[in-house]
Order: sequence, then structure tokens, then C-alpha cells
Amino acid sequence: MPVGTQAAVKTLAPEEVADTGAAMVLSNTYHLFLRPGHEVVRELGGLHSFMGWDRPILTDSGGYQVFSLADINEVRDDGVVFQSHIDGSRHLFTPERVMEVQAALGADVIMAFDECPPGQVERQAAEAAHERTLAWLARSRLRFQELRAQGLSRDQTLLPILQGSTFPDLRRDAARRVRELGEWHGVAIGGLSVGEPKPVMYEVLEALEPELPAAGPRYLMGVGYPDDLLEAICRGCDLFDCVAPTRNGRNGTAWIEGEGQINIKAARYKLDAGPLDESCDCYACGRYSRAYVRHLFVAGEVLGLRLLSVHNIRFLVRLAERARERIEAGDFERWSDDWLARYRAARAETKERMT
Amino acid sequence: MPVGTQAAVKTLAPEEVADTGAAMVLSNTYHLFLRPGHEVVRELGGLHSFMGWDRPILTDSGGYQVFSLADINEVRDDGVVFQSHIDGSRHLFTPERVMEVQAALGADVIMAFDECPPGQVERQAAEAAHERTLAWLARSRLRFQELRAQGLSRDQTLLPILQGSTFPDLRRDAARRVRELGEWHGVAIGGLSVGEPKPVMYEVLEALEPELPAAGPRYLMGVGYPDDLLEAICRGCDLFDCVAPTRNGRNGTAWIEGEGQINIKAARYKLDAGPLDESCDCYACGRYSRAYVRHLFVAGEVLGLRLLSVHNIRFLVRLAERARERIEAGDFERWSDDWLARYRAARAETKERMT
Repeated sequence: MPVGTQAAVKTLAPEEVADTGAAMVLSNTYHLFLRPGHEVVRELGGLHSFMGWDRPILTDSGGYQVFSLADINEVRDDGVVFQSHIDGSRHLFTPERVMEVQAALGADVIMAFDECPPGQVERQAAEAAHERTLAWLARSRLRFQELRAQGLSRDQTLLPILQGSTFPDLRRDAARRVRELGEWHGVAIGGLSVGEPKPVMYEVLEALEPELPAAGPRYLMGVGYPDDLLEAICRGCDLFDCVAPTRNGRNGTAWIEGEGQINIKAARYKLDAGPLDESCDCYACGRYSRAYVRHLFVAGEVLGLRLLSVHNIRFLVRLAERARERIEAGDFERWSDDWLARYRAARAETKERMT
Repeated sequence: MPVGTQAAVKTLAPEEVADTGAAMVLSNTYHLFLRPGHEVVRELGGLHSFMGWDRPILTDSGGYQVFSLADINEVRDDGVVFQSHIDGSRHLFTPERVMEVQAALGADVIMAFDECPPGQVERQAAEAAHERTLAWLARSRLRFQELRAQGLSRDQTLLPILQGSTFPDLRRDAARRVRELGEWHGVAIGGLSVGEPKPVMYEVLEALEPELPAAGPRYLMGVGYPDDLLEAICRGCDLFDCVAPTRNGRNGTAWIEGEGQINIKAARYKLDAGPLDESCDCYACGRYSRAYVRHLFVAGEVLGLRLLSVHNIRFLVRLAERARERIEAGDFERWSDDWLARYRAARAETKERMT
């Protein structure tokens, strides 16, 4: 899922996002709550109508942003009092409130409110966040059911988020207790890719995998980069979101098959008449030379940001499409190992060249 | 002609520009000379190929930018020594050099090098710039013919620029002497819309009109706003370029039929579910609400800049299309007077509301 933080995937129109093959976008509850306000979005017909995107949308729980962007005034058992990063205004997010906000936004998939601690917290803090997330899940679910009964949430699916930081036993406990709480259409793994070393993330996913239901998507939140995507697919994950393709794109970074990642602003591309990525079928690669995209970046032209955003999203979508094909063909692991080895070798070479 | 200063109409892809109905774009010789360099553009196949625009392109003479953007070191009879506004590097533009640069860029229509003085210069300065522009025109033409004979300029048309500031006799003299210099496929009127009062511009156009050849387009450089466009069409002009639609668009200003111009950031549009302009057939008006476009601007989302740029370009193109229809129908003046009266009344009302 490309990320449309504020009801827009940065620099792109919905048609351009759809053209990358992305089947679903994520938008941020925290941001939309603050601006333009969930009631504004509801009044304008909900997120799909508001932003002109007719495919599925997922809104996150706001938990991650509250804990990473806002000034926290107080974390209580009933919720979090925080200050807006925009204007300092004070707000309270409770599980119930977050359900109401997401019902107003009207995404297809909504997330239970969770406490997302930073990357490598101590056991005690991890345990507290894990327990609180489970308590908040029960309350989220209850309010969600009420909203449905009142006709205030239509055609929405609620997904639970598993916390537990880097502690395998907490992770497994989260999976089991979420399962005991009822039936779900999928499950999300939160609190990873938040600063912990990558091997630690992979270990957590491996420990968690046997406890996850076979049916329904497993959504690894906030991931990721191309290598993370394949490593996580390898460990049973299905759904992802990350700002990396668009944020990197706006910084001039493009993922290129066989070359790892390049910075298009480099002088070496000044006269490069070839496409960004010969193997890519995206709009940017089909229409423009590296030299032109470089020029756009050097000259500060917004079209450059758009072209790399489109390319990077398509790069990840294509990687996921190929992973699906290889899984169906039965040789995913061999293909994935090979792809990762080539990607990492190319990344290492690029880094060397740049130092 | 929408303006693609640095080989891109700001924030837009070529398809989006084409969708507005714009038949031709302008790009700036001065900017492209400095970045990425005309030889780079030539090596990458010329401007059409470089920027992915397969319709006509006009490059300007660089004169306006040299005199308005650069630090001038010296204006001599052979040319202008100036310093780049980007890095302070020193360069010499002569009429010959400007022809070579534009031949390398490869636009369909190229402009003779001219001296463009500011809005309301004294008679003496206006006369000097006028005489120099005529001398430079002869030299531009000679070098252009040489470049064609050498196969270095292909399928390009050279247009002369008339200077003479706000002095009707100088303007008429320019028109006559340009005509005496040879056959042209059109003629450009420079040095207007550069700070002089609008009625003065209209008077100059009226004085000039009888001296202009009936055949071939008359290109009024740097114009304009919707009312300027109609006033100039009324006075016999055919072709225009201006950054106003895109620059205003990026500032949140939209031209709206019946409303003059609005600032989409205003709080009054927060819940406005209607399109920007009910009468408009552009992409932005067909797909998004005012409330959404406002949200994009308030939230700092680039898509907002794109949507207003598209709309404003389409607004001017549609205005020109309607003017053409009215001219063919024989009631242009009545329609134009009526349109202008409504536009100005709406503008006055908006201004009053905002003070």
C-alpha cells in the first residue's frame, strides 16, 4: 500500500497510483483527524469520494503517529492525551474515539487503537504496551460493533494489531490472545521496523508465524524497503505499507533492478539517454531519460518528484507481483535468495562508489 | 502557450498540458542555456524528445531574462555580458550566439535576440533599445540563415520581436523596418506587460495594429491574465505566453467563470463539495471538490498545485477557444465586452470581500 498520509499519495493523482498496480492505499487517521478533520471527510462523502480513489483504503489506528509525532501529555489506561504537531492543540484518543474517527473517514479496513513503543524498549515497557494494546483491542471491537449496529460504520473491516516489541514470547502471546478474542479477517503486526536491527525483526516474524491464522492477510506495518519486503514475504507476511518509495523518490533516490538504488542527481546521469530502469514498465521509465529526470531534480522541478515516486511504487508493486508468481510456481525461496543477493551486492557496490 | 521555463510546465506532465488543449508551449532559452545547457539538450535529441512534448515548442530569445533575472555586467552593441542568477558565472549573449543556442535546443519557433527595457523608460533609452533590437534582428537573421545552410537548424522558424516601449511612433517604426528586412512567418510584440499601466499597453497595441501584416500570427509576449488576453485579441493579437496560470495556481489562486478569481485556501471552501468551476471541463473540475483542493493546499500537498495549474491553463485555453468561435461567428466584440464586464464586476466584488 502506497501511503496517502493526508488523503493524497504525495505528489501523485489517484490515476497515477492506480497505474502502478497498487490495489490499496493507506491513509493516516491521526493526520486526517487533525486536518481537515474526520467530520469534514464524512460530510464530503468519506475518504474514497474525498480523495477520488475508488479502490480499497486502509486507515491506520493513529497509534504510531501519536507516539512518534505528537507531544504526549499523558498515556493513561483509557487513552492518550496528546498535542497536535501542527498547532499544539490538545486531544484525547481512546480506543472508542479512534473507532468513531475511522468510521467517519470511511476506509474499507480500519485498525484497532494500539500503543506502539519505540524500537528497543525494555521488557517492562514492552509488556505494558502489549497488555494495553490487548485491552484497547477489546474496547475497539466493542465500539466498532456498536457503530455497525447504529449504521455509522458501513462495509468496514476491523483488524487487530499485535504488539510485543522484540520479545518472541510476548508476540506469541499477542497472537494467541487476539485469536481468543474472536474472529478476524486478518491481523496486523505493529511495532516493528521502528528502530530495531533488521535481523531482530526477522526473528520476531519467525517466532510469530506459527501462531498466525492461515486465512486472511498478515499485514506488516511500516515495511518497507525492497529487501525487507521479500524477507517478510518469506516469513509469511502479505500486506505492507511504507512511505519509503515516495519519500525516497522525492529525495532523488530510485530503486533500479540490478543496480540496487541510485541517486538521480549524480553528475554521471547528465547525458544518460536511457530510462531509469530498463526492466521497468512504469510511466516514468517508458517516457523519460535519466538525463531529463536528473535535470528536473537539479532544476528543482516538481515533475521529477512525481516521476521517481511513480517509479519506486511500481518497483515495489512489481516485486510483490513477482513474489506472488514465484510462490505459485513453487520456487519463491530460490528466486528470492537470488534476488536479494544481487540487490545487496549492487547496494554494497553503490555505497563503495559513493565513499 | 503555457510556460515550461526549464523544459517542464511547472508541476505538470506533458500529457496533462496537452489535455488542457494547449497547442504549443514556450520554454526559456536563458534558463536552458544555463541548466542543463543547450548542448546537453541537443545531445539528448532536442527539446521535444528531452521533455517528452511532441507538439510545437517556442523558445524565447533570452533577452527578457537577461535583462530581468541576471546581473548585467555590460550591454554592448555586440551583445550582453551577464552573470548567471544561479551561480554567478559570466556569459556573453550575442544575436549570433542566441541563434546557435536556440538551434541546439531545437524548438519549432525561435526568437531573435532583443533588448527588453523595463516598463516605463525614458524616450532615449526606449529608442536605443529599439535601434539595438533592429540591428540585432538583422544579425540574428543572418546567423539563422547560415545555421540552416549548415544543416544545424532544421524545421525552425525565426520570428522578429518589436520593441519601442510605450512610444507609438517607435512601435510603428519597428513594425515598418522589420517588414522591410524581409519575409516573416509572424511577428512578436515584446516590451509590454513589463510594468506599464494596462491602458498604455492597449494604446500601443492599437497604434501598432495597422502596421502589422495581416498574415501570420501576432505574438504578444508575456501576456497574460484573462482580461488582458481578451483585450489583446480584440486588438489583433493571436498568440500569448504567460506564467500567470501556473504561478497563480501554485499560490492557490483559481480563475472561475462568473467569480473572477478565488483563493482556494479561504475557510469558506472547507465544506464546499462543488467543483472549482461548474462550467469547466478540465481534469481538476471533473474529479475533485473545492473542499478537497483546499485541503491539499492547507496541508501542503503538491497535488493541489497541479490541480489549480491544470485548471487555470484550461481556463485560458477555453477563453481563447471561445474567442475564436465568436470571431468566426462575427460577434466577438459584443461577447468580449460582456465577458469582460462580468469578469471585472466579479473581481471587484471579490476584492471588496477580502478587504
